[in-house]
Amino acid sequence: MSTRRRSTADVPGLVEKARAGDARSVARLISLVEDASPLLREVMAGLGKAAAERTDGGAHIVGITGSPGVGKSTSTNALVGALRKQGKRVGVLAVDPSSPFSGGALLGDRIRMQDHALDPEVYIRSMASRGHLGGLSWAAPQALRVLDAAGCDVILVETVGVGQSEVEIASMADTTLVLLAPGMGDGIQAAKAGILEIGDVYVINKADRDGADQVRRELRSMLSLAERPEGAWKPEIVKTVAMTGEGVDDVIAALDAHLAHLRSSGQLEARRLRRAREEIEAIAVTSLRERWGDVHARTELDDLAEQVVAGRTDPYAAADELLAGIGD
Amino acid sequence: MSTRRRSTADVPGLVEKARAGDARSVARLISLVEDASPLLREVMAGLGKAAAERTDGGAHIVGITGSPGVGKSTSTNALVGALRKQGKRVGVLAVDPSSPFSGGALLGDRIRMQDHALDPEVYIRSMASRGHLGGLSWAAPQALRVLDAAGCDVILVETVGVGQSEVEIASMADTTLVLLAPGMGDGIQAAKAGILEIGDVYVINKADRDGADQVRRELRSMLSLAERPEGAWKPEIVKTVAMTGEGVDDVIAALDAHLAHLRSSGQLEARRLRRAREEIEAIAVTSLRERWGDVHARTELDDLAEQVVAGRTDPYAAADELLAGIGD
Repeated sequence: MSTRRRSTADVPGLVEKARAGDARSVARLISLVEDASPLLREVMAGLGKAAAERTDGGAHIVGITGSPGVGKSTSTNALVGALRKQGKRVGVLAVDPSSPFSGGALLGDRIRMQDHALDPEVYIRSMASRGHLGGLSWAAPQALRVLDAAGCDVILVETVGVGQSEVEIASMADTTLVLLAPGMGDGIQAAKAGILEIGDVYVINKADRDGADQVRRELRSMLSLAERPEGAWKPEIVKTVAMTGEGVDDVIAALDAHLAHLRSSGQLEARRLRRAREEIEAIAVTSLRERWGDVHARTELDDLAEQVVAGRTDPYAAADELLAGIGD
Repeated sequence: MSTRRRSTADVPGLVEKARAGDARSVARLISLVEDASPLLREVMAGLGKAAAERTDGGAHIVGITGSPGVGKSTSTNALVGALRKQGKRVGVLAVDPSSPFSGGALLGDRIRMQDHALDPEVYIRSMASRGHLGGLSWAAPQALRVLDAAGCDVILVETVGVGQSEVEIASMADTTLVLLAPGMGDGIQAAKAGILEIGDVYVINKADRDGADQVRRELRSMLSLAERPEGAWKPEIVKTVAMTGEGVDDVIAALDAHLAHLRSSGQLEARRLRRAREEIEAIAVTSLRERWGDVHARTELDDLAEQVVAGRTDPYAAADELLAGIGD
């Protein structure tokens, strides 16, 4: 969308190599996407074709969320290990919307994911791009497309931040995994954060500690209060000790069960349609704002603003005129 | 923009009466704006003409912001009193972006503004409309247009909430007044909140309390660190005891001095142009989102989302197509 830097790359070649599983090509494509490279459109067109040719329905996108201290990175690490034992190709997208740093893997992620850093069937990527051309809502879905085209069976999207971003992550995922841990007052926190509405699978980590059963009871009683339509998914609760790997296979089973439910109920298709809608809309609005906001050239918007200030037109009529000019 | 409720009103008549100072017509017009009435466009067109015919440059819009407890409502009340003594017509827009309630004056405002509630030359209005059709950024500027057309000399925009909204208010105002009070750790808070960048006039209220001079010193030293271009406005610091009215005339003088500076430097025109730009853009984007998001009819966006999910197109090409169809 922007042309701020010249870029040359053999996009069809990169897409072809990414599909074959070449990690460097995957990394390069995500960078092109993140940097809003002039080649972005070409990349996206290539990825669209790659996605269409996948016959297995595409990657299962799992959002992982939870308060700091519950063991998010350890759990992600354990899940990657378990999925790799099943022979799955795995993508990990660690998103920190509150961080100003963007691009490449952050040192912290390299360290904590070092068990899998050298595995050619695991793609690990950190994004921290809030504010950059519309932020997370803009760049992360594109990175997911790259990982999907690269043939990932499962993509774990881990949010590093807290708060609003969790809801945003959930809106991108097929399945949302909410992590809790005993002794953190998570029950009340979860209710406050609206986490109870977004979780498909709840994992009580550090289950070897006192209070794990208490968290489970509280969670169960809170979940039982939620009204669910007939045939809706009933969130599963799983206990783990991510550090030792205990219970991690149960988490994988719960994720698989949720995916199967999404497929059989038609919700998978519905969720993906909704996601595509949001993605197209975000791109369209970003593109318009860029066009209107061009500071180097005097735009139609400048002229209209002048007319509004002078009282020769009103903001609504000006907005109509602005929109009428888009198709030109 | 929406047609969710039928409305009949003699819009030209309302605008004419509002210009003559009829409080009920002013209230009715703001309601039409807030409710996104079908008559909205007619209202805006009428107001545009009214604004063009004002020969005095329009209302001076003053944003008032500050942490809870500094005496915002008492100060607003005192300012209204002082302005009325000068024979000015005054509008007060109290915005609480965090509140879900909207429309009409809230009980709290009625009580605290009761000194002026019966004065026909004072218009008091509460808005609490975050989230409603794009929220504050959408509705508040329209309410300002109504108060401007009603011939207000000064409009005080008071933010009830804290945080981000303050910056938003500042972007709508000609002059931003930041309220502080001793003993609240405001110095550090102000620096954190970025308030030092938005204030044109700083008022240290409760100046009869210990620590007022300390706040003044800290503020002065922080403000002295800011780099300002040659000829730029140097923020003024005024001490008040709003409860007794002490210092309030000095605040008015500082506001007048800032307005004079904005006029002579050409910044008033520039600020109003920028505001009109943002307003037109917000209306255009809201209007597009409404069109695309129409849940009652199948939209072009639904078709495009389907094609993206099926891999027949990519989100960028889909966004292009969506935008190409707007002018139709």
